[in-house]
Amino acid sequence: MPQQNRTLTAMSASDFTAAVASEIDRFLAARRDQLLDIDASLAPVAQAAFDFTAGGKRVRPLFCWWGWQGAGGDPADPRLVAAATSLEFVQACALAHDDLMDRSDTRRGEPSMHRRFEAHHRDINGLGDPVGFGAGAAILLGDMFLSWSDEILLTSGMPVDVLLSARRIFDAMRTEVTAGQFLDLAEQSRVDLDVGRAELVMRFKTAKYTVERPLHLGGVLAGADPALLSAYSAYALPIGEAFQMRDDVLGVFGDAEHTGKPSGDDIIEGKHTVLVALAMQRGTPAQRETLSAALGNPDADVAAARQILTDTGALAEVEDRIEELTARALEALTGAGIGENARQGLTDMAYAATRRSR
Amino acid sequence: MPQQNRTLTAMSASDFTAAVASEIDRFLAARRDQLLDIDASLAPVAQAAFDFTAGGKRVRPLFCWWGWQGAGGDPADPRLVAAATSLEFVQACALAHDDLMDRSDTRRGEPSMHRRFEAHHRDINGLGDPVGFGAGAAILLGDMFLSWSDEILLTSGMPVDVLLSARRIFDAMRTEVTAGQFLDLAEQSRVDLDVGRAELVMRFKTAKYTVERPLHLGGVLAGADPALLSAYSAYALPIGEAFQMRDDVLGVFGDAEHTGKPSGDDIIEGKHTVLVALAMQRGTPAQRETLSAALGNPDADVAAARQILTDTGALAEVEDRIEELTARALEALTGAGIGENARQGLTDMAYAATRRSR
Repeated sequence: MPQQNRTLTAMSASDFTAAVASEIDRFLAARRDQLLDIDASLAPVAQAAFDFTAGGKRVRPLFCWWGWQGAGGDPADPRLVAAATSLEFVQACALAHDDLMDRSDTRRGEPSMHRRFEAHHRDINGLGDPVGFGAGAAILLGDMFLSWSDEILLTSGMPVDVLLSARRIFDAMRTEVTAGQFLDLAEQSRVDLDVGRAELVMRFKTAKYTVERPLHLGGVLAGADPALLSAYSAYALPIGEAFQMRDDVLGVFGDAEHTGKPSGDDIIEGKHTVLVALAMQRGTPAQRETLSAALGNPDADVAAARQILTDTGALAEVEDRIEELTARALEALTGAGIGENARQGLTDMAYAATRRSR
Repeated sequence: MPQQNRTLTAMSASDFTAAVASEIDRFLAARRDQLLDIDASLAPVAQAAFDFTAGGKRVRPLFCWWGWQGAGGDPADPRLVAAATSLEFVQACALAHDDLMDRSDTRRGEPSMHRRFEAHHRDINGLGDPVGFGAGAAILLGDMFLSWSDEILLTSGMPVDVLLSARRIFDAMRTEVTAGQFLDLAEQSRVDLDVGRAELVMRFKTAKYTVERPLHLGGVLAGADPALLSAYSAYALPIGEAFQMRDDVLGVFGDAEHTGKPSGDDIIEGKHTVLVALAMQRGTPAQRETLSAALGNPDADVAAARQILTDTGALAEVEDRIEELTARALEALTGAGIGENARQGLTDMAYAATRRSR
């Protein structure tokens, strides 16, 4: 298949993520000019936008890219690079706002957005409350990222009729992820844990948002038919859940040096993950009591919580589920009319998403 | 002019604002269905979206409508109603997020969004911090409103090439208003007040956002030429500044029963308005000290602050400026190729914006 050899040579996954990074910088350079035209004092806002979008694994753009290729799109098409980059801006909004809501101090080893501007307020000896200033700045930066997400999609150069179809996916995705965040917020306000509710949050906050909708977006941009989009869903939903469960395991057992988050952060933040909900379901009254007391406690005994997650078999069950979901996702790739190149790419993504240490 | 008589009959300004309200409800009914399909527990989110967008003077849609008519658009065109309604969703986001940043308890006499969800958290005996829950909910609702703003614009039924031109206005506007909010946030962290900086905030947070960009949006949707857009700007920027200065006067001297905000709220919140900046510029050291101490002080002596704003002549100067800016805006309407109907409408809007009590 000479076509596929050519495209493989034309752009690898790491070439693509580099192209996404360049596209972010190109787009943000224009936004910086726009902000500085308004007032020079907005320079720290522009700089924060660059810094906050500089890292990351570009998971959502990558799924979009494979969704595009699986429907026959040229992997080196710069219009797809721009369209896929829109997902990084939705994510930048979600991260800035999530970190604020979760009171997270760090993001990828750097201060989170509200913490950055809190420090800025102290540096300039600002009047009033630095915490309120940091929160306000994080809210507004997130709003800018969200506005910019559709700006970059609509100026990607894709044909307008295709764009309007893609927008239906994009719009559904943004409502879904915000709804998922709301369900997560409501979940943290509940005393009891429930596996089914934790799964619901996972489906909307991660599986659909991180995998299914990006694949659909790329697919629709390349003119995918409904059967292909269904095949993408059959792969995406299990792999998205497996991806989130790997995150949940890393959130308790992960190494801070790899994850860029304090070790045991999910326990301290009191997240109602499937992992923790399973331990609560299976634990003895004493284990449940200890785990309950640790959740959301800044001085939690993380080691004791880890022991309970292990002893109850919750960790083993989650690992089993990750294996099973990954197998189901890979199975879904075999029947569908997905090109060999994209099938291989999505297989690699499945392993990367579920067998990582960060 | 039978054409104009027909259109005047077809839709009055109050018909138009009623149509905007219906369009909001139609759009939100579909969003509610989408949210309830995700999970029934999202019902309070959907209800909050209805309630929060139910009131308001629809100022921005009205300017959009006059901008459309001034360029020859049919006032009864339902596509314009949908497109103009997008501005109400941008505004709903700005209000939800602004109230949170300003720690405002009320909006149009009802609890602000974060306060509403704070109360909800208490009603359900939620775990953890009700204030954090309220803040998170207000952030997420605002994000939904922002996402929905471009969704309703792009699904308005306008021709796609026109929509893509209109998007440039819309995108610029959203970046400008968020930048203006950031400048305002930074302004509140400064010890000193400055008339020039207060004017800059006013230009971006109000004049361009509330008047100029809505007029441009309506104009571009109707195919306005650059000369007409310039004429809109020559009207919009002064009237927008006058509109904001009227707001600033009402924020200190307004009647709570009319404004729906506590009397003297701007003093208590410590807003750096042009009105206050002028008083600081003109006041004696003793007046400046008293006013400084009142700004941002929940127990401020509002009557004393009012007296200083009056005694320094700051209030009179602001009233003079409002008169002068209004005259300049109306003057800008005479030369431009704006139809008689829109000219009359924009004249009425100028008076309504600057001679109101709420």
